[in-house]
Amino acid sequence: MSELRHNAISGEWVVIATERARRPEDFAKVNKERSVNPEYSPACPFCPGNEALSPEEAFRIGDEGKWTVRVIPNKFPALSPKETLARKDDGLLHLITGYGIHEVIIENPRHNAFIPLMTNEEVKNIILAYKNRYMSLRDNEDIKAVIVFKNHGPMAGTSLEHPHSQVVAVPIIPPQIENRMTRAAHYSNETGRCIFCQMMTDELMKKERIVLETDKFVVFEPYASMVPFHTWIFPRVHASSFSEINEGEIDDLALCLKRVLSKIYYGLGDPDLNYVINSAPFEEKRLKGLHWYLSIMPRITKAAGFEVGSGIFINTSLPEKAAEFLRQVKV
Amino acid sequence: MSELRHNAISGEWVVIATERARRPEDFAKVNKERSVNPEYSPACPFCPGNEALSPEEAFRIGDEGKWTVRVIPNKFPALSPKETLARKDDGLLHLITGYGIHEVIIENPRHNAFIPLMTNEEVKNIILAYKNRYMSLRDNEDIKAVIVFKNHGPMAGTSLEHPHSQVVAVPIIPPQIENRMTRAAHYSNETGRCIFCQMMTDELMKKERIVLETDKFVVFEPYASMVPFHTWIFPRVHASSFSEINEGEIDDLALCLKRVLSKIYYGLGDPDLNYVINSAPFEEKRLKGLHWYLSIMPRITKAAGFEVGSGIFINTSLPEKAAEFLRQVKV
Repeated sequence: MSELRHNAISGEWVVIATERARRPEDFAKVNKERSVNPEYSPACPFCPGNEALSPEEAFRIGDEGKWTVRVIPNKFPALSPKETLARKDDGLLHLITGYGIHEVIIENPRHNAFIPLMTNEEVKNIILAYKNRYMSLRDNEDIKAVIVFKNHGPMAGTSLEHPHSQVVAVPIIPPQIENRMTRAAHYSNETGRCIFCQMMTDELMKKERIVLETDKFVVFEPYASMVPFHTWIFPRVHASSFSEINEGEIDDLALCLKRVLSKIYYGLGDPDLNYVINSAPFEEKRLKGLHWYLSIMPRITKAAGFEVGSGIFINTSLPEKAAEFLRQVKV
Repeated sequence: MSELRHNAISGEWVVIATERARRPEDFAKVNKERSVNPEYSPACPFCPGNEALSPEEAFRIGDEGKWTVRVIPNKFPALSPKETLARKDDGLLHLITGYGIHEVIIENPRHNAFIPLMTNEEVKNIILAYKNRYMSLRDNEDIKAVIVFKNHGPMAGTSLEHPHSQVVAVPIIPPQIENRMTRAAHYSNETGRCIFCQMMTDELMKKERIVLETDKFVVFEPYASMVPFHTWIFPRVHASSFSEINEGEIDDLALCLKRVLSKIYYGLGDPDLNYVINSAPFEEKRLKGLHWYLSIMPRITKAAGFEVGSGIFINTSLPEKAAEFLRQVKV
């Protein structure tokens, strides 16, 4: 018995393949490699004392030589502010020069730190840095969207051990954001409501996919989870852009993100994962229907030819069981 | 200097990150593990003599005990014909029961075979099996699309060594196909032309991304390649559905697929890869603008948080250089 479930926010379908279903605890394995990383690594460009190895700092929390978070330009940027924004068209071929911003947020001085192992204050500083970078780009007319994300572990696309997030600011509205915008606007036109707020209300009533709640955030497994332990963090108060996050929400998000990542870390043995902040592009006044959220995607399974060809993911874990498992992990 | 390139068929953008660009030969590495696989593995359910270990055959080429290709139902199907097709709706939540077909195509009796190592006749038999499975599903009113794909190697999502492809028939039009349909119809309405035919004509004129040509197929690296050595095989004669492939095209595709996979196999050291046949769903009469094609995606790099969050891939290889490299690999 498997089923196809629809993601109301993206319009995508997921196969929940219960024939192949594994129990939540079967996904757990201890990541032995990472558990022996040192607190300081002399050759690491992100470790304290090696600041000269990286490009000039764009932002810092804490004093020089005693920082807690540092933001630097990416040494090998995907997009660069040195480019001049221009378009070229040749028949069907459209090109935009690689104008944009690509920064690295060094989350902590400790080489082997990870949010579950940090103090609340340290996690809060990371979120303050996210907001700072968002705000620093607000007045740039050429930037249409900002993607803040983290790659944790090689399966999630990073080989650098030192804990870091990335910011990429792009000169177009990415297709995934455009798709969510269109769908949210359509729902809002039809019903007068935000589809994200509606989903959160429904999930709170049903309870079965809720992982945890804080004052200002609701954490749940999406009904159409793309991968095992796919987890969403929604702010309770409607806001289309992450840049609108206020001080109370920052404190609360730090707590909330630490708790949910700790449940994944201890419950599943520190799996590789990505998280990303899905936020409206900057023209948020026209986008009342959008609602920012943070999405966590553990990289326990691999997308194969079927996913590549159809866009339909096959998930071998029931979201309701995953939520139940995560609820029970004590942190 | 990097650039954003637009995929006219999907509407997606790709960052071609030449700052991080590697030379084509830097992607090559020899896959030592696979090169020592035996021709016969006693415990393998797909090896000759072990036919009783798998569910009842749906199709076979060759005599019993002397087959060259076998098709069997997947033992752990994502979707199953035993389900009754039904929908359930609950507010924002939409569900379809897991009705569908999920088959495994055992491509060859030899445990360590792979298309580059097979005879032309053997490759042709695989393509005949693809067409047979497509045709077997044509009259099923509940099936809206068929995905034929291959996962080669663990990074591409398979742990089974014995060469096999898969067929998944789904009761919905997958979002990626729906998106291509909409875009192709729009282009066809505006210009009266097929956007795929137009792209092929343009690429043949430009030459720089062409990998090889046969009588009936054109192989090229897409302008907006999502990953290094992303490769498309387009039939020269317009046809919306793979089910329309004729005998001459089957012979030619066998030759063509073997040549391009051999170039990748020998040139890049047998990388893990997926390929998938992108084809119109069955209502092809209404879909004059669509054009089937085969897409090969080597899994040399990993999608990270940026790709997950934005849908924009970062490709560190120039498609023009990849095409030049593959052109020069002698097979």
